[in-house]
Amino acid sequence: MPAQKSYIEEIAQKARAVSYEISSRGTGEKNALLNSIADELSENHDLILEANKKDVFALNAEKGKAFLDRLKLDDKRIEAMVTTIRDIAAQPDPIGSGNWINKRPNGLKIMKIRIPIGVVAIIYESRPNVTSDIAAMTLKTGNSVILRGGKESIHTNCAIVGLIHDAMKKNNFPEDSVQFIEKTDYEHAAELLKQSNCIDVVIPRGGEKLIKFVEEHSKIPVIKHDKGICHIYVDEIADKVKAENITINAKVQKPSVCNAAETLLIHKKYPHAKSLIQALLDKEVEVVGDAGVLQMFKALKPATEEDWFTEYLDLKISVKMVDGVGEAINHINRYGSHHSDAIVSECYDNIQLFLDRVDSAAVYANASTRFTDGGEFGLGAEVGISTQKIHVRGPMGLEGLTTEKWVVYGDGQVRE
Amino acid sequence: MPAQKSYIEEIAQKARAVSYEISSRGTGEKNALLNSIADELSENHDLILEANKKDVFALNAEKGKAFLDRLKLDDKRIEAMVTTIRDIAAQPDPIGSGNWINKRPNGLKIMKIRIPIGVVAIIYESRPNVTSDIAAMTLKTGNSVILRGGKESIHTNCAIVGLIHDAMKKNNFPEDSVQFIEKTDYEHAAELLKQSNCIDVVIPRGGEKLIKFVEEHSKIPVIKHDKGICHIYVDEIADKVKAENITINAKVQKPSVCNAAETLLIHKKYPHAKSLIQALLDKEVEVVGDAGVLQMFKALKPATEEDWFTEYLDLKISVKMVDGVGEAINHINRYGSHHSDAIVSECYDNIQLFLDRVDSAAVYANASTRFTDGGEFGLGAEVGISTQKIHVRGPMGLEGLTTEKWVVYGDGQVRE
Repeated sequence: MPAQKSYIEEIAQKARAVSYEISSRGTGEKNALLNSIADELSENHDLILEANKKDVFALNAEKGKAFLDRLKLDDKRIEAMVTTIRDIAAQPDPIGSGNWINKRPNGLKIMKIRIPIGVVAIIYESRPNVTSDIAAMTLKTGNSVILRGGKESIHTNCAIVGLIHDAMKKNNFPEDSVQFIEKTDYEHAAELLKQSNCIDVVIPRGGEKLIKFVEEHSKIPVIKHDKGICHIYVDEIADKVKAENITINAKVQKPSVCNAAETLLIHKKYPHAKSLIQALLDKEVEVVGDAGVLQMFKALKPATEEDWFTEYLDLKISVKMVDGVGEAINHINRYGSHHSDAIVSECYDNIQLFLDRVDSAAVYANASTRFTDGGEFGLGAEVGISTQKIHVRGPMGLEGLTTEKWVVYGDGQVRE
Repeated sequence: MPAQKSYIEEIAQKARAVSYEISSRGTGEKNALLNSIADELSENHDLILEANKKDVFALNAEKGKAFLDRLKLDDKRIEAMVTTIRDIAAQPDPIGSGNWINKRPNGLKIMKIRIPIGVVAIIYESRPNVTSDIAAMTLKTGNSVILRGGKESIHTNCAIVGLIHDAMKKNNFPEDSVQFIEKTDYEHAAELLKQSNCIDVVIPRGGEKLIKFVEEHSKIPVIKHDKGICHIYVDEIADKVKAENITINAKVQKPSVCNAAETLLIHKKYPHAKSLIQALLDKEVEVVGDAGVLQMFKALKPATEEDWFTEYLDLKISVKMVDGVGEAINHINRYGSHHSDAIVSECYDNIQLFLDRVDSAAVYANASTRFTDGGEFGLGAEVGISTQKIHVRGPMGLEGLTTEKWVVYGDGQVRE
C-alpha cells in the first residue's frame, strides 16, 4: 500500500499532472478564460468584499495602517484587478514563438521554441490583487500555478480563487491548474519548497523575512523579488530643479515600495546640497547623514554602517557626501540591493560611467527610480521585480514565466 | 581588527573586486587576449604534458580506463583546446547587444542591454579542456571566473591556468578575473557555495554526486548540468532502417556521454521490434526489458523500476513495449531527466504530439539524441548542457553567461 500523500504533496502532484495538458492550450481559449474570470470578479464584488471584511476584522491592530491599506479592498480596487486581467488577455501570447531557426549542413532543422515553465509556485504576502494578477499571468502562459498567500488575506484569496474556478469550469479548464494553499503556516510552506519533482520554479514576493525563508529552505530554483535599496546620486554638475524633483519623487511619492529611494549620495562640490537636504526635511522626511551632512545640519542624527544597508520603506533617508561618481558607484555596488539606481548629472562621461558600472537591474540618468515597473516600462502586467541575475532581471512580465525547448526535425540523421 | 579572510573568501572577494572593471572591456581587447592564450597553450605543449604526466601517474587505478581517458592529454588534444579558444575568439560578442528599445509617452528612453553575469564559479571533474574552454568563454563574456576542477587533474589545470595568466599579464588583464582553487576537497567546495555576496552563479558540471552536493549546499543560484536519461521511442509506423540506425547511434556511438540513449520504448505493434533489439544485442549491448521484451528474448534479464531511472553511461539499455505515443510520452516525462528524447515515426500527428508534450530540453523527430551539443546545434562552444528550466535550457553557449540590465535615459521625469 503506498504511503498516504500529504496535503502539500497532493497539491504539487495535481499541478504537475495537469501541466502537460494545460501547456498546449491555444491563445484564443486562454484569452476567453481570462475575460471570463474578469467577468466573474466584476459581477461578484459583494462576495469578495464580504470575505475581505472578515480578513479586515480579524487583522491584528499591531500590523499597522500600511498593512491594513494593502489588505483592504473596495469597488475601485476590485475593478483595477478586473482591468489587469483584461489587459493580460489583450497582451501577445509568448508561447510557441521563437526567433532562432537553423538548418544544419546535415539537413537537421533546429528551432528554439518558447514554452511554459510548467508548474510555478508563488509565495506572497497580504495584497489580494496578487492572487488574481498571478493566476491570470500563469494561465496566459500555459503554466500550472500553486498560490500561497499570506494568512491575513485568506478569506479574500479563497473568494477570488473560487470565482477563478467558476470561470475555469465554464471554460473547460482543469481547476487543478490554479490551486491555492489554505494552510498558511511556515511548516506547510517549507514542505512546499521540497516538491522539486513537481514544481519547476518558486517565486517569493514579499519582505526580507519571507525571501530569506525561501532561500534557506528551497530545493526548487528560486526567482526572488527582494528588497530595493535604491540610490539617487547627485553629481557635481547637476540641474538644481531636476535633482530636487527626482530626489523628492523617489523618496516621498510612495515610500512603501521597493523602487523608492533609501539613500541619497551628493557630490561634495554640488553647490545646492544644503537646499536639497532642506527640501527633504520640508517634506517631513527623517534624514540621517554622514559627517559631511552633519556639518551642514548639526541637529541631524548620524547614519550608522547599518543605515547604508537599510530599506526604510518609510519617510526616512540616509545621505552621504561623496568625492565623485567613482565613489558613488562603489558605494552603490557595495551597499545597494542591485535594484534601481539613478544619477542626476549634466556631465555626459559621468552618466555613461554610472550606467555602465552600477550593477543593478535598472539604472537611470536624470529620472526617478520609481519608474521600475512592468507597466511603466511598457511590458504590461508584472509578476514582480526580480532582483537576481539569472533567468529574468528587473520587471518580470509574461516572458519571465516561460522557458525554451529545442525542437529538431530530422530524416534519419545520426552522429558521425 | 577585522577577522582574517579564509582562502576561499579571499578568492571570492578578489573575483568580485575586478568584475566591474572587466565587464566593460571591449570585444577587440578580449579577442586579442583569447588568441594570446591560444598561442601560449600552443607553444607550451611540453609544459602541459609534463604536468599531465604527474596527474596520470598519481591516478588511482581503481578509477578505471574511461576516467584515465578523460584525464590524459596528448598533442592532438591540446591543439583541440587551442582551436576551441580561437573559435570562441571568432564568435560574436553578445555583450552590449539588445533588441528591446522603447520610447515611452513621457519621453523616457528605455533599453534592455546584455551584460556579463559578473562572477561565475564552475565546479567540474577531471577533463582538463574544461579549464581552458570555460576560462575562454567567461573572458569573452566579460565575467570573472572561479574554477574548481577535480583533484585528479590538479597539475594539468594549474599548468593551463599558469599559461592563461601569462597571456593575461601580456594583455593587461587582471589575473584575478581567472582564479583557480587549488584546494580540491569538499569542505572548500562547500565554503565556496556560501559566497553569495561575491559570486552570482555557480555551474556544477559532472556526475550525479557532484550535482547533488552543489544543490544541497549552495546559497548561490545554480545552473545545473545534470545527467541525461534519454529515450528513443519507435512508433507503430516507423521506418525500419531509420529506427535501427538512430537507436544504435544513440546507444553505441559514445555511450559515456549525457546525450546517449538509456531507454528504448517500442510500440507493441511495431513489426520489427525483435530485429531492432537483436541489432542492439549484436553490438554487444546488454539489454534489460519489460515482460513484452522477455516474451521475445527469454534469456534477457527483466528491467526493474530502478532501471527506468538509471543513466548507465555504458553499453546497456532498458527496453519497454508501450501501447502508443501517449504511454511513451508519459513514461519519458515520469522517468526521464528532461534532457534529450527522440521519436522515430512516419506518422505526422504522433510526431507533433511527441514534440509538443515531451518536457525535455531537446526533442527530436527521426534523428539521434546524440546531436544535443552546442557545436552540433550551430551555437559554437558550450559550457555544458543545462538540464534546468530557468535561465538557459539545453546547450549553454556564450549567451548563457550573460544577463540583462535596463538602462533608462531621462530628462528629469518623475512618477505621477
